[in-house]
Amino acid sequence: MNAFTSRNDVPGSIAMPDGPSQVPSDVEPARPDLRAVDRWWRAANYLSVGQIYLLDNPLLERPIWRDDIKPRLLGHWGTTPGLNFVYAHLNRVIRQRDANLIFMAGPGHGGPAVVANAWLEGTYSEIYPAVTQDAQGVRRLFRQFSFPGGIPSHASPDTPGSIHEGGELGYALSHAFGAAFDNPDLVVACVVGDGEAETGPLATAWHSNKFLDPSRDGAVLPILHLNGYKIAGPTVLSRIPREELTQLFRGYGWEPMYVDAGDRAGMHSQMAAVLDQAMDMIRQFQQRARGTSDRARPHWPMIVLVSPKGWTGPATVDGLRVEDSWRSHQVPLSDFDAPGHLECLDAWMRSYRPEELFDGTGRPGADLLALAPQGGRRMSANPHANGGRLLRALDLPDVRDHAVAVDRPGSVTAEATRVQGGFIREVVRRNMDCFRVFSPDETASNRWGAVLEVTDRCFMGRIEPTDDHLSPSGRVMEVLSEHQCEGWLEGYLLSGRHGFFSCYEAFIHVVASMLIQHAKWLKVSRELPWRVPVASLNLLLTSHVWRQDHNGFSHQDPGVLDMLASKSADVVRLYLPPDANTLLCITDHCLRSRGLINAVVAGKQPAPQWLSMEQARAHCAAGAGVWDWASDPGEPDVVMACCGDVPTLETLAAVQLLRQMAPDLKIRVVNVVDLMRLESVDRHPHGLGGRAFIGLFTRRRPVIFAFHGYPSLIHRLVYSRANHAHFHVHGFMEQGTTTTPFDMAVLNRLDRFHLAMNAVSRVPRLAKRAPALRAMLEARLAEHATYIRQHGEDLPEIRKWQWTR
Amino acid sequence: MNAFTSRNDVPGSIAMPDGPSQVPSDVEPARPDLRAVDRWWRAANYLSVGQIYLLDNPLLERPIWRDDIKPRLLGHWGTTPGLNFVYAHLNRVIRQRDANLIFMAGPGHGGPAVVANAWLEGTYSEIYPAVTQDAQGVRRLFRQFSFPGGIPSHASPDTPGSIHEGGELGYALSHAFGAAFDNPDLVVACVVGDGEAETGPLATAWHSNKFLDPSRDGAVLPILHLNGYKIAGPTVLSRIPREELTQLFRGYGWEPMYVDAGDRAGMHSQMAAVLDQAMDMIRQFQQRARGTSDRARPHWPMIVLVSPKGWTGPATVDGLRVEDSWRSHQVPLSDFDAPGHLECLDAWMRSYRPEELFDGTGRPGADLLALAPQGGRRMSANPHANGGRLLRALDLPDVRDHAVAVDRPGSVTAEATRVQGGFIREVVRRNMDCFRVFSPDETASNRWGAVLEVTDRCFMGRIEPTDDHLSPSGRVMEVLSEHQCEGWLEGYLLSGRHGFFSCYEAFIHVVASMLIQHAKWLKVSRELPWRVPVASLNLLLTSHVWRQDHNGFSHQDPGVLDMLASKSADVVRLYLPPDANTLLCITDHCLRSRGLINAVVAGKQPAPQWLSMEQARAHCAAGAGVWDWASDPGEPDVVMACCGDVPTLETLAAVQLLRQMAPDLKIRVVNVVDLMRLESVDRHPHGLGGRAFIGLFTRRRPVIFAFHGYPSLIHRLVYSRANHAHFHVHGFMEQGTTTTPFDMAVLNRLDRFHLAMNAVSRVPRLAKRAPALRAMLEARLAEHATYIRQHGEDLPEIRKWQWTR
Repeated sequence: MNAFTSRNDVPGSIAMPDGPSQVPSDVEPARPDLRAVDRWWRAANYLSVGQIYLLDNPLLERPIWRDDIKPRLLGHWGTTPGLNFVYAHLNRVIRQRDANLIFMAGPGHGGPAVVANAWLEGTYSEIYPAVTQDAQGVRRLFRQFSFPGGIPSHASPDTPGSIHEGGELGYALSHAFGAAFDNPDLVVACVVGDGEAETGPLATAWHSNKFLDPSRDGAVLPILHLNGYKIAGPTVLSRIPREELTQLFRGYGWEPMYVDAGDRAGMHSQMAAVLDQAMDMIRQFQQRARGTSDRARPHWPMIVLVSPKGWTGPATVDGLRVEDSWRSHQVPLSDFDAPGHLECLDAWMRSYRPEELFDGTGRPGADLLALAPQGGRRMSANPHANGGRLLRALDLPDVRDHAVAVDRPGSVTAEATRVQGGFIREVVRRNMDCFRVFSPDETASNRWGAVLEVTDRCFMGRIEPTDDHLSPSGRVMEVLSEHQCEGWLEGYLLSGRHGFFSCYEAFIHVVASMLIQHAKWLKVSRELPWRVPVASLNLLLTSHVWRQDHNGFSHQDPGVLDMLASKSADVVRLYLPPDANTLLCITDHCLRSRGLINAVVAGKQPAPQWLSMEQARAHCAAGAGVWDWASDPGEPDVVMACCGDVPTLETLAAVQLLRQMAPDLKIRVVNVVDLMRLESVDRHPHGLGGRAFIGLFTRRRPVIFAFHGYPSLIHRLVYSRANHAHFHVHGFMEQGTTTTPFDMAVLNRLDRFHLAMNAVSRVPRLAKRAPALRAMLEARLAEHATYIRQHGEDLPEIRKWQWTR
Repeated sequence: MNAFTSRNDVPGSIAMPDGPSQVPSDVEPARPDLRAVDRWWRAANYLSVGQIYLLDNPLLERPIWRDDIKPRLLGHWGTTPGLNFVYAHLNRVIRQRDANLIFMAGPGHGGPAVVANAWLEGTYSEIYPAVTQDAQGVRRLFRQFSFPGGIPSHASPDTPGSIHEGGELGYALSHAFGAAFDNPDLVVACVVGDGEAETGPLATAWHSNKFLDPSRDGAVLPILHLNGYKIAGPTVLSRIPREELTQLFRGYGWEPMYVDAGDRAGMHSQMAAVLDQAMDMIRQFQQRARGTSDRARPHWPMIVLVSPKGWTGPATVDGLRVEDSWRSHQVPLSDFDAPGHLECLDAWMRSYRPEELFDGTGRPGADLLALAPQGGRRMSANPHANGGRLLRALDLPDVRDHAVAVDRPGSVTAEATRVQGGFIREVVRRNMDCFRVFSPDETASNRWGAVLEVTDRCFMGRIEPTDDHLSPSGRVMEVLSEHQCEGWLEGYLLSGRHGFFSCYEAFIHVVASMLIQHAKWLKVSRELPWRVPVASLNLLLTSHVWRQDHNGFSHQDPGVLDMLASKSADVVRLYLPPDANTLLCITDHCLRSRGLINAVVAGKQPAPQWLSMEQARAHCAAGAGVWDWASDPGEPDVVMACCGDVPTLETLAAVQLLRQMAPDLKIRVVNVVDLMRLESVDRHPHGLGGRAFIGLFTRRRPVIFAFHGYPSLIHRLVYSRANHAHFHVHGFMEQGTTTTPFDMAVLNRLDRFHLAMNAVSRVPRLAKRAPALRAMLEARLAEHATYIRQHGEDLPEIRKWQWTR
């Protein structure tokens, strides 16, 4: 129980008529600098309450009338005063130390606070000139909040100084660490809500301190805001003994410092003291790491801020406790037809003494404005929170230097992601301060081992002599948490750097919701001219569905393509390169792109190579094309289309079978690298025009389409195409069996035999021969089935198949 | 560094030729009961190695030949000996105490271990009679592992005694707690891998102890297996100081007990001692809670088992450390053309002394068999791990007792989920030992507050007098972690109970991957006759996309429907009831169903009600139907179809507009409750037959379809329908704006005006009038746009609209 909880229980406290928090003004801090902080805090609180409630009368020049109040009250008060308190104190520290600090508002619905502070700092008016620093501007500031065409109740891309959306909870600390990596001068002050702290991603993010190197990285200063309540109940961390809480954070490797006084003045002086101490500790740890060879992991400071939820708001409403209770989560007062409520809001807002804060024009007083840091030191204007401003293009190697020599299609074998790993190694080597790779312990498994020739896995835990490429300064970020990988990468990108996340295809679903939220962030950011585009979020999805024969059903899921395809076309790209050289071209392209989520699906197993580097570049530039070397000239009888590496292999094998069985058949092979080429041009910027689409797939010839993912995605993409009825798609179907690689394809009818069977069935002039041809193919399938159950591996003719023509 | 790591560093240790772990047999335990445990352990290890490697020669009656070895080595050794060690020790405890225990294998790829133990216990042969307890059976046991048509390398539904898939990591502890809730006699021994422990869901799951009531729930005994390595690197928890680790777990509220001896005998005696101590503590805590009024939260015991990874496997291979290193993660030996490898495998397997373990027929020795617990006490045969065997049908109230009285369509207003909450309250009241509701702090927000009239929120943290419906015995499980809610519920269901998870629609994506894995589990389970179906996993998805006007873009995502629709049709059902009575009928149906994931999308805002209970029952039974009361008789000019509550409202409003503007237009209104009715009958058991589909939607009339989710899902579902070209779908498009409820619909063209405009444009005989009608509707839209930007809420005519005919 924190010191505030009993305040309204004492006899004589005013319960009805309800009023603002009964904190006597004489407990304001005595220290002048803290009186100034308190003043800023009052101003930010006033501006926050105004945003939530008022349509008009922004400076309370008259009593609040019923019509001044928004018809729909959609903001959230609970977390806001705590955020304002922290922000005000951080500004003191920034000014005093010329500190380079950004602010991460983890708690949900903290929008009013971050917007209020950005406005007080002047940044808001610089970015949105209509929201001036005067009465008219305050009115706009208030009206726009949770209002049609306005801003949401969370920190969002609209919010200056934010790189963290406050909608879906759990990622604040991971984002903070991402921003701190390779930013030696930066301190990321990260407020973590005690609700948010219950999420899984946040619970593991405390361990990020084992991956931050004080000699090259900045610092993260977590501030756990223990305000005690979520939407409707208490938080876990606020209801365990203080001793347990301390042990928990020490166990996580932090040194917790508490701010938990019984009164306002005490809170200010404690907060100032622990902030100073924390900043001193951070500097000392950094100096030790940077000045000596001591690479010990510091026990970084963190702050536990114990405050009432809805602090300084109405203590009670209608006789029920509101301040320091879950009832202050959203709007403490809502029904303004109830007696006394209007007066309560009026008294609440006036308790911040607006007359002391604003001059006659509604401009914040000069003394208040002087409390803001200057220029880019303002947290709302720090360029690290608008990372595109700091972004430098990567120094990229020439893909041709990494090309696999392919004299003729199918003549050589390579592991695509291993070749890509060589390229990534050079990217790392050339960009040692702004590029990292992230993976849940799968960098080597995904065949990017070459990267470890130029850097290590990053680790600040104990290192043993027998460890393999492990050091504090490594640029390979491996932790068995897709959430951490994704969160770190997002923070790293949004603060102006570059990266690549390699992941097992099936387990990228672990961060499905994070990808959705990042896509939303990028989409909204594109519409804000002041947000400079950041580097794209690049995903290598490997160990993919078609080679999960041994891991089985739990590892088989290509559905991330469906999920991403449903998101905004502005920000999503899906690539399925069929071999190593196309993968190299796509990788190069992704690393040059901005503001996108690029998902690249590629296998890691040895596989035949189809295109020379020159061919690969042309093919990737087109995104989809006819493979002439595998096709017959002119109008074909059938189009054999493919998208994905295994589908391409099986399609070419099917083509070979068809040529043997029906030499007169005219076949066209179409390969799709850029899946969004299939989408119509009015729905996706990469969509093929109608004529080009028909040019590839013909107007009415059957298209046997072998696809890496669920067939329904192809149907959905080509739905509005004139020839869509001719598409016959083979792809992944839920099976659930353990088997051999080729048999995976057979079970899903994506194999050469099923593809060939479908083709012969669809070509009218093969109608007579089709039954016999199908029977031949069925016999081959039966032979395959017998063989694998006996030998446990595929038929030699399958394993050793080679393309010939 | 644990005591084992230096074993092979001492001069003179055998590095080449490589051999098995150099543990002298004289360090076997002295205590006879522990010698027996060691014997079981050796047998399980032998059977595990055999599964990974051998096709034949299962009892090593001759040296291992090259041909005995599987052509593809796909198993994982690293975690296996530790799991076997724990299992063997737990069996001793079960026998000694007649304990009711189940086993949760958290680490990935633990399949060989759990299967080996189930076979030793006889359960495997009982369930799979072909895998006998003799030489022939051992041969089958070995061959089937990671083999075509066989079993995967994880614990999976095929594995007797498992309710936890070992594929995607992070959920073991949440599943364990779910199984322990309301199972006062049960102890769930849950091995947590130190890799898995890095995931977010696992990191927060340790806090589950704040939600387990010792007076009514069973116990969870976590065993953190600190074997030090993941696929390719060290684990975080194995590389922090022991003191930090202890603080971490004390901070989480556990009492950690270490097993970390330098030798085999010491490990056995320590493990036995801490297990006995832990079981004693559990019993004492339970006795205290059950015998007295002391409801203090116990500091439950947990075990930290420090062992080498790949323990007892080859110490080194080709001069590189394998045991106690990441190199033992998968197969310590793989290239059997390399010199000495075959001999090494032979020596390794013989180090378990199979000749002492099996009799001449390959049957485990009688002394070994006698070590297994009896019948249902065997962890592989415990009915709690095959929950359908224990499942009792819920005592369900009559939905009619909760019906909203609807005399005529649209005449009354209700909040659908609040009505549902009243029904759920009665379900809770009647099923106080086998039904719980789960939510990330949203039970009240989602309008299920009525449930709190009969039970509380469950909480074992400190409770304050001001708290609202909070107690240790509550049946409302609220924690701000969708992962915990989902994991607890899965464990609760898989052990034979019932539940409902209510969640904001957008944030169900947080557990997208868990839903995918659960769907896979259910699909495979259906194919196993011995797995008795469990209760369905029921999801209420509310606070949905169409009422996220204020929360904004981050809260707008209906894509979970797409994700679930792509999963196996056998196990997924999607319901979008348009009002309260249909929601009641669907809820009742879901609670009676078995083995499914039922996703129910329903709004919580006041909305007009359409159907009486009688009509609702008929409509839900049909799944989709013509609403005669809103339709004109006979063949219509246009079909106005809708699926979802907001789309239904807007469709009916559009119908009313159309009737006003074009009284001669013949309109049919079709409402879809069960989305899978749209799917073709050969793809989904709920799919409508072709004739029925045409009967509803007509053969060639335009269908204006207003859909709750992404339009592409409807296109995908009706793709193969004869009339699909006539479907014009309105649904969610990514927008990203803060606005009013109705304007949300306008921005997405799902509103009455856009629906009506599309309808007039599609009906040939309105062609002449269409431009004028569209202009009228456009004017209304313009008026709306002006109004909301001024007033911040929708036009009164929109807010107060009522259905009339």
